[in-house]
Amino acid sequence: MVSRVIPVAPFDLIVFGGTGDLARRKIIPALFRRYLAGQFEDGTRLIGAARAGLSPVEYRLFAKEALKEFSAEYDENSEGLEDFLNLLDYVPIDATGDDGWEELKTKTSTDRVQAFYFSVAPSLFGALAERLNSYEIAGSQARVVVEKPFGRDQETARALNATLAEHFDETQIYRIDHYLGKETVQNLMVLRFGNMMFEPLWNNHYIDHIQITVAETVGVGGRGAYYDKSGAMRDMVQNHLMQLLCLIAMEPPAIYDADALRDEKLKVIRALQPVAPHHIVRGQYEATDTAPGYREDAGNLRSFTESFVAMRCEIANWRWAGVPFYLRTGKKLRARTSEISIIFKALGHSIFEGDTTPHRNILSIRLQPNEGIDMTVTVKEPGPGGMRLIDVPLDLTFAEALREADAPEAYERLIMDVIRGNQTLFMRGDEVEAAWGWTDPIIEGWEARHDVPKQYVPGSSGPEDALMLLHRDGRRWRDIKA
Amino acid sequence: MVSRVIPVAPFDLIVFGGTGDLARRKIIPALFRRYLAGQFEDGTRLIGAARAGLSPVEYRLFAKEALKEFSAEYDENSEGLEDFLNLLDYVPIDATGDDGWEELKTKTSTDRVQAFYFSVAPSLFGALAERLNSYEIAGSQARVVVEKPFGRDQETARALNATLAEHFDETQIYRIDHYLGKETVQNLMVLRFGNMMFEPLWNNHYIDHIQITVAETVGVGGRGAYYDKSGAMRDMVQNHLMQLLCLIAMEPPAIYDADALRDEKLKVIRALQPVAPHHIVRGQYEATDTAPGYREDAGNLRSFTESFVAMRCEIANWRWAGVPFYLRTGKKLRARTSEISIIFKALGHSIFEGDTTPHRNILSIRLQPNEGIDMTVTVKEPGPGGMRLIDVPLDLTFAEALREADAPEAYERLIMDVIRGNQTLFMRGDEVEAAWGWTDPIIEGWEARHDVPKQYVPGSSGPEDALMLLHRDGRRWRDIKA
Repeated sequence: MVSRVIPVAPFDLIVFGGTGDLARRKIIPALFRRYLAGQFEDGTRLIGAARAGLSPVEYRLFAKEALKEFSAEYDENSEGLEDFLNLLDYVPIDATGDDGWEELKTKTSTDRVQAFYFSVAPSLFGALAERLNSYEIAGSQARVVVEKPFGRDQETARALNATLAEHFDETQIYRIDHYLGKETVQNLMVLRFGNMMFEPLWNNHYIDHIQITVAETVGVGGRGAYYDKSGAMRDMVQNHLMQLLCLIAMEPPAIYDADALRDEKLKVIRALQPVAPHHIVRGQYEATDTAPGYREDAGNLRSFTESFVAMRCEIANWRWAGVPFYLRTGKKLRARTSEISIIFKALGHSIFEGDTTPHRNILSIRLQPNEGIDMTVTVKEPGPGGMRLIDVPLDLTFAEALREADAPEAYERLIMDVIRGNQTLFMRGDEVEAAWGWTDPIIEGWEARHDVPKQYVPGSSGPEDALMLLHRDGRRWRDIKA
Repeated sequence: MVSRVIPVAPFDLIVFGGTGDLARRKIIPALFRRYLAGQFEDGTRLIGAARAGLSPVEYRLFAKEALKEFSAEYDENSEGLEDFLNLLDYVPIDATGDDGWEELKTKTSTDRVQAFYFSVAPSLFGALAERLNSYEIAGSQARVVVEKPFGRDQETARALNATLAEHFDETQIYRIDHYLGKETVQNLMVLRFGNMMFEPLWNNHYIDHIQITVAETVGVGGRGAYYDKSGAMRDMVQNHLMQLLCLIAMEPPAIYDADALRDEKLKVIRALQPVAPHHIVRGQYEATDTAPGYREDAGNLRSFTESFVAMRCEIANWRWAGVPFYLRTGKKLRARTSEISIIFKALGHSIFEGDTTPHRNILSIRLQPNEGIDMTVTVKEPGPGGMRLIDVPLDLTFAEALREADAPEAYERLIMDVIRGNQTLFMRGDEVEAAWGWTDPIIEGWEARHDVPKQYVPGSSGPEDALMLLHRDGRRWRDIKA
């Protein structure tokens, strides 16, 4: 099955920070794939903008190297590659000064969709936004795309929102959380709301608890000094994990559109209860014989910043009262995996004699490394004689019909959504602020108490206390495995 | 995965009608497979008994031919084949006289499990049962196995039950419905009662209707004269289709054992409402240029017997009020298939814009030709851009873990259940009588009204009226396909 591609009218995409790491790893490869899929009509312009004094030709070389390294579709001699590169333009620009803005103005038109991708430090958002308006570069169909971190607490997020709001309307602002662009996250919405059979089960009558794990194998490495100012809570929980939690927990929106969906997510965030200190475990990975520990990586031997956090959250509403949401994320863990698991209650009563296993249905949504959704179902082991029950995972996503399809990368989807003006998968300003509103007191508590993260063995599942967090409740984490 | 085989203590199996068609096609091949699986301990005796004056050696030749024709495991030169055949014994016997009974007595022991398989006309049940007792052949662990047809109405079934009851206890009587021995039927029980997620949906809140189709491609052929005295209602609906309906519709038994299960099935039969004449469609297949029609096959050009019947049934209880059960069975239809489909209600509301397909979850249990259970689930078609929803079937039975297992034939399972003394998959006397109690007035109505079956095209889905039966309700039959 080839997925249908609907071309979009010619647009301009301007990537500020066009020579940066995100452009190289994600944005340029995503654009290349969409180009190969035939999604760009003639006249579409893709423009890099950054401080570096490159010519367009040099920028194409930069982009070619990026594709060579990060794109599976890279083929040295293909016509597609050459054509795509020729589409790229470049403007050297000074975000906080005047250089380059007049030139940029000549390269884009105000009468079409213009996407300004702010792949730069948040401190530059205001300067960029202001200049897009003062130089009359941005037209009525202009959109700005911003990446995390969106603030480091509620106050700074509010300030960033205010800055952007001076120059752009909320409907023009696209706050990316690339987790929301994952095919599987989309599919989770369809499973929940496109099937009669799941929604009746989606509540505290049938669900025992929920686990969300985002585990990484890498340490903080070269960006330790930067990371040490944020930590796992700010870097991962406040955005990615909370977004996933919201999608699982929200009430059905009346319609799958930006505001209806974001209204529902916001309600979840607001219903999140404060988390008691004994329901949170923080960790730092230890040094090994061959590798430095977190504190060495951070360049701060007295660092109190967490490279791991696990927590037990509760949502105080009718649907979820009594159903814990266990969140966990960290660096240098056993495997790189992101997974949401809905663990249904165990059978209250087995009619099958001798069947003492507590069978549970588990709906598991994998975001990486292999996107997919599977459901653990109890079936009869084939064979004559007695009834022997076994639990088998069923792949719900990739039925035969879907196997051959080529799922797009999150960034491909999200960039095209910007062009199409679909904000559904982007965070609204109030949502981001509310999320900080929930994490701020937790982080402030740590600081006030001088909370010291537990040390954990690199390659493990995190500190023992994190295991105990569930053991105390008679539950256990699902294995972290690739 | 190799299914575990638990050998059973040495037993005696005596097949009356041991030279008959059922013995040849089903019983002997089933025994052979169980033998190869290592399920029979030394000392087990398998004895054919019939009118024919064969020697044991001749019976082994008969069995060898049967295996050659009907067993996939047949291998001319295998040791297993030779060993199995040597296990077979034979006694020429006169069911209604005295010949052979003393000899049979010398070949079986009353101190072990003895299974007497009555693979003969029901008119002989009484004579066989009486002699097994008067000759003191049957011991305390004796069991009798009887096949359909078990009577032709409630009165005759009651008489047969009474005859058997004169000589055997109900716990010794195994009424076979081979549909209940299907692996998939077992699995249906596990799906319903071994998973948290299905039972909450299993009622009139979530299920729109249920379809049970047992379609055959063959005509009545050589057995037309016999068939003409019964018809599809007696031949298929009263036993197979009603059994399947009961398993779908029954309340959860407290325990999966013979009486608990049969009590629940009985409750369903008793809750079945009388069927109004306009909710039943009867048919007879027409002649074609190359093949005779039903009436020619039956040798009765004025036959009013149905080779096809479709009906809309209702179960008057809390769980099922308002959920029609559509049953359909017939000869010379489009494909050979047996399928139960649970059609869930359509989504009441789609949150996905432009999604106008009425998505429905459908749980489909195939009994033949390829046993299996699948569930139609709505998922997102992979790809960037919009949400395109597609309905895909997921194979619930044969997850990877199960694919390699070798599902046993229904007869293998059922025969071993007899040996083990497990009556769960056999019909109890009161159940059979109750089933006739429901079909009798329907059949009597036809006879009283001289109801004439509609003609239908061989290879079709039956008469148009059968399609209309659902169209009137805004529904449609699932395709009959192999």
